[in-house]
Amino acid sequence: MTVYEFAKGLILEAGNNVKKIMKQDIEIETKSNPNDLVTNVDKATEKYIFDNIMKTYPNHLVIGEEGHGHDLVDEQGVVWVVDPIDGTLNFVHQKENFAISIGIYNEGKPYAGFVYDVMNDVLYHAKAGEGAYENEHPIPDIPSTPLKTSIIGINPNWLTKPRLGEIFKPIVDEARSARAYGSAALEIVYVATGKLAGYITPRLQPWDFAGGLIILNEVGGKGTNLMGDTLSIYEPSSIVMANKQLHSELISNHFEKNIEIIELLQQRLKDSD
Amino acid sequence: MTVYEFAKGLILEAGNNVKKIMKQDIEIETKSNPNDLVTNVDKATEKYIFDNIMKTYPNHLVIGEEGHGHDLVDEQGVVWVVDPIDGTLNFVHQKENFAISIGIYNEGKPYAGFVYDVMNDVLYHAKAGEGAYENEHPIPDIPSTPLKTSIIGINPNWLTKPRLGEIFKPIVDEARSARAYGSAALEIVYVATGKLAGYITPRLQPWDFAGGLIILNEVGGKGTNLMGDTLSIYEPSSIVMANKQLHSELISNHFEKNIEIIELLQQRLKDSD
Repeated sequence: MTVYEFAKGLILEAGNNVKKIMKQDIEIETKSNPNDLVTNVDKATEKYIFDNIMKTYPNHLVIGEEGHGHDLVDEQGVVWVVDPIDGTLNFVHQKENFAISIGIYNEGKPYAGFVYDVMNDVLYHAKAGEGAYENEHPIPDIPSTPLKTSIIGINPNWLTKPRLGEIFKPIVDEARSARAYGSAALEIVYVATGKLAGYITPRLQPWDFAGGLIILNEVGGKGTNLMGDTLSIYEPSSIVMANKQLHSELISNHFEKNIEIIELLQQRLKDSD
Repeated sequence: MTVYEFAKGLILEAGNNVKKIMKQDIEIETKSNPNDLVTNVDKATEKYIFDNIMKTYPNHLVIGEEGHGHDLVDEQGVVWVVDPIDGTLNFVHQKENFAISIGIYNEGKPYAGFVYDVMNDVLYHAKAGEGAYENEHPIPDIPSTPLKTSIIGINPNWLTKPRLGEIFKPIVDEARSARAYGSAALEIVYVATGKLAGYITPRLQPWDFAGGLIILNEVGGKGTNLMGDTLSIYEPSSIVMANKQLHSELISNHFEKNIEIIELLQQRLKDSD
């Protein structure tokens, strides 16, 4: 069994466990603020994934939201980047529209990405260089679109921020329309499947984007920070994921004009990490 | 067969026709602007619904988006308020997440509401006074929530508008989070099923909200314009749909403070109709 096949089985099994636990009551606890809910399911799922990776591949490394895993500083061996429940608020309030996300990197290079929409039972997955799949259906390359005919994913919350809002407003105004689904991992794979032409957010952790990014790259999409730099799985970052034409238009017509504010925000992200 | 049973069969059959036509190519035409796409499917579906109502109930009246039906000025007999495709941009860009919406009124009083999420094959429906259903499952009454623990539906587009944006921003900031799904009919039934605690938008036509409103009322939710007034199926309106506690909080803490701007917007809606 390849690591890819193992990971595919593991994420599906983890999803089945989530469904089982959801039939019981959900015990919710708050982390630092009411917007940052985390559930027992989150922790149990990360532990399940971590323990199974360690049992089968004791020399692999794991980066995860809930603190399981290892402190990593640079590229070494096989690294799994795991988000047990992406879209925690959807999980709590909607009992659906959340995902398990796994990105696997080998010596710093993308190896495979998985985003599992648990309640809809849709697994988005890709092995680098071999194309992306929605369950067993190949996902075609995404078409290029200019902003004015694009539907973009962006949370309304960001438009209320004083400086950031001023950068994002002209983008929303020029776009055909905007959507907000509340799960970064799902919104990134929605770009890969063409439901969204792009997805923009000022702050994600590596486990939010690692799986989706590998899938998006396989269908010709591009993901960077708002300055256009390559994303690292070792630090939080601002995010723009889109088809190549839209990505290029957003960087040159919008983000480059505001490079000083964006660099400041990126620096704050690193400082607060 | 009751009108309710007839309407239920009709909307499901109309949905099946949509799926069939979607397997063929979709010919898109633009109405007044690129944000206002309308498809052959839209027109064909409205004609199908209109013709079938007229065949079975020649004395009923129909209000519809695409111009079929009758010019109505006040409450008379049985009136069907029909949106053949709500969420046209989702239809065009996503091939899913759109709905057929039907609200039926008898002598000005709500009789039955239907919102059919075609691609997910979920029919939300309610006969006034007899409870609401998601397919065959009764929808429970929705819980009361304060804004600070609520997920609200609001399109990011509205936050970029100069005066309206200033009214909506504090709401988005105080809410636990915000979502935007791109179909008013679906967003209203999401309030009814508790996926969203509320849904706010400055402008809807009667066919966008008539079906969903009847469903929402059956589970204890409330829908009015932003001034708190009862909605009419004969004119466009601003919209706030929510559980009762949230509805009351939004009106008294947010919209009443801005009543002059809101009245102005409401007047413009009527003038432009």
